[in-house]
Amino acid sequence: MSSEFELIDTITAGVVVGDDVVVPVGDDAAVLSLAGHTVVTTDMLIENVHFKRQWSSARSIGRKAIAVNVSDLEAMGARPSSVVIALAFPKDLDQQWVVDFEAGAKEECVAAGVSLVGGDLSSSAHVAICVTAIGDMEGTAPVTRAGARPGDVVAVCGKLGWASAGLVVLQRGFGSPKDVVAEQLTPSVPYGQGIAAARAGATAMLDVSDGLLGDLAHIAESSQVLIDVDTALIEIPEQVQRVAAATGKPPLGFVLAGGEDHALAATFPPGAPLPVGWRRVGTVAEGSGVTVDGQPWDGSLGWDHFG
Amino acid sequence: MSSEFELIDTITAGVVVGDDVVVPVGDDAAVLSLAGHTVVTTDMLIENVHFKRQWSSARSIGRKAIAVNVSDLEAMGARPSSVVIALAFPKDLDQQWVVDFEAGAKEECVAAGVSLVGGDLSSSAHVAICVTAIGDMEGTAPVTRAGARPGDVVAVCGKLGWASAGLVVLQRGFGSPKDVVAEQLTPSVPYGQGIAAARAGATAMLDVSDGLLGDLAHIAESSQVLIDVDTALIEIPEQVQRVAAATGKPPLGFVLAGGEDHALAATFPPGAPLPVGWRRVGTVAEGSGVTVDGQPWDGSLGWDHFG
Repeated sequence: MSSEFELIDTITAGVVVGDDVVVPVGDDAAVLSLAGHTVVTTDMLIENVHFKRQWSSARSIGRKAIAVNVSDLEAMGARPSSVVIALAFPKDLDQQWVVDFEAGAKEECVAAGVSLVGGDLSSSAHVAICVTAIGDMEGTAPVTRAGARPGDVVAVCGKLGWASAGLVVLQRGFGSPKDVVAEQLTPSVPYGQGIAAARAGATAMLDVSDGLLGDLAHIAESSQVLIDVDTALIEIPEQVQRVAAATGKPPLGFVLAGGEDHALAATFPPGAPLPVGWRRVGTVAEGSGVTVDGQPWDGSLGWDHFG
Repeated sequence: MSSEFELIDTITAGVVVGDDVVVPVGDDAAVLSLAGHTVVTTDMLIENVHFKRQWSSARSIGRKAIAVNVSDLEAMGARPSSVVIALAFPKDLDQQWVVDFEAGAKEECVAAGVSLVGGDLSSSAHVAICVTAIGDMEGTAPVTRAGARPGDVVAVCGKLGWASAGLVVLQRGFGSPKDVVAEQLTPSVPYGQGIAAARAGATAMLDVSDGLLGDLAHIAESSQVLIDVDTALIEIPEQVQRVAAATGKPPLGFVLAGGEDHALAATFPPGAPLPVGWRRVGTVAEGSGVTVDGQPWDGSLGWDHFG
């Protein structure tokens, strides 16, 4: 393997640097010129816990590492600005894996509109990745989980159920339907929709990483409201239906309880028009917890339970 | 082990939250109200690479994880604001280790004057820690590595040689002199001295993590200057002299080439008074590279070489 410094040169070559980057990668820290409040989130991806190298290409893992972090910025209604990437990997790992990982990360940075401004390389027994994403609020107020009010509309944007269907396919040793597997390997985050929701008056928002019902329960708890999901409003994608049929699992379970899709879920004032791409799935009421079609949800559709 | 959510409650209990934190830990991302440009840096600490659990207490490792990151903010002349901590650990690790780690991290946050605003918990085969630190420039210009000019004075602030002396002691199976071992386990970063140097007109700055000469070489390269270190100006702490005598290693090697101290090194205009706590160690001249007492430095005092 070439030296760490040569590897860093390879990684940082061709990095897109946004106008808001004052000091780019290469100094003790990066310096950003942000507008309004600064938004920060971090997530770690660990080999054999969050991904398997035999299932995912290095490029997919690089893309996913960026996507799942920028998704958290979107969920605040922020404008994503930049990311830093810390990567630890075994000394005997093929250097091409690292180059491909970083190429995937840079590719997703372009898709998400963020600059790669810093990083850290270490050795470790297994691959460990930590991405921190930075954004700004451009003068608007952050959309937390705590602002939902009775009467609000619950809506989602992005794919639901695809990633968990893809996981079931992979666990059975298959590689298709390819589009659900692709969503498991690299979720397609609805970039730009967090700001769109904030501008449309979203009162609460989060990204769906643990499953729609479980994540809506976080909004219900933080906002001290009840959220009811209307299954008549839930679309079950044809690809998810195919996986459900092939595996004997309830199709609704994938959509309501499957995790890792990184769709956005938000609440909007009753009169507000939803932004393009958002679809209504339920209603906020007085009370607490989550109901499905008016019936208390006890978590039994949770990912661990419906498998 | 109690649930992840209970553990997070324990970790976030009693966290000091600064006035600049708009949305604290607990939402998709934290939101900060920063003054001037935003500064960001990330570092990963991997078990058996950067620390050993048999050498370091969980509390020491927690303190070190914060210290080494905030040190990079100091090195830009920034005001440290906040940190996020991602922690991965084996499922069978005693939960008290995690609680103690976080207690140490929170303790160092108080010392460094930063808020803990976010995090992530995962499982992994070995402990992996990733801290990202955020600061602001409060309207002043960042001090990069690239601003040193011929005629400038080279100065340092903080301890040099202690951490590498501590490492040698630990590698030989000893636990004393305790004060050098303590510096290896948790470097005492000169908090506040980065801003002090920036206000005193520092033209270039970095933190000394790889060894003084090696790090000064980074300034020399980025600034396209030559840096000469005058060994007559180098203090060799009595504790480092004792370790050098006991191990037969050259005492100057620890101070000039030992890493992990996280002292600050900076260049100042020739006429500028140095801030309190800073000491002159050399001079900037036209040319390139690093010299010691006017003689070219070939890296032979480097940590790998003088051992």
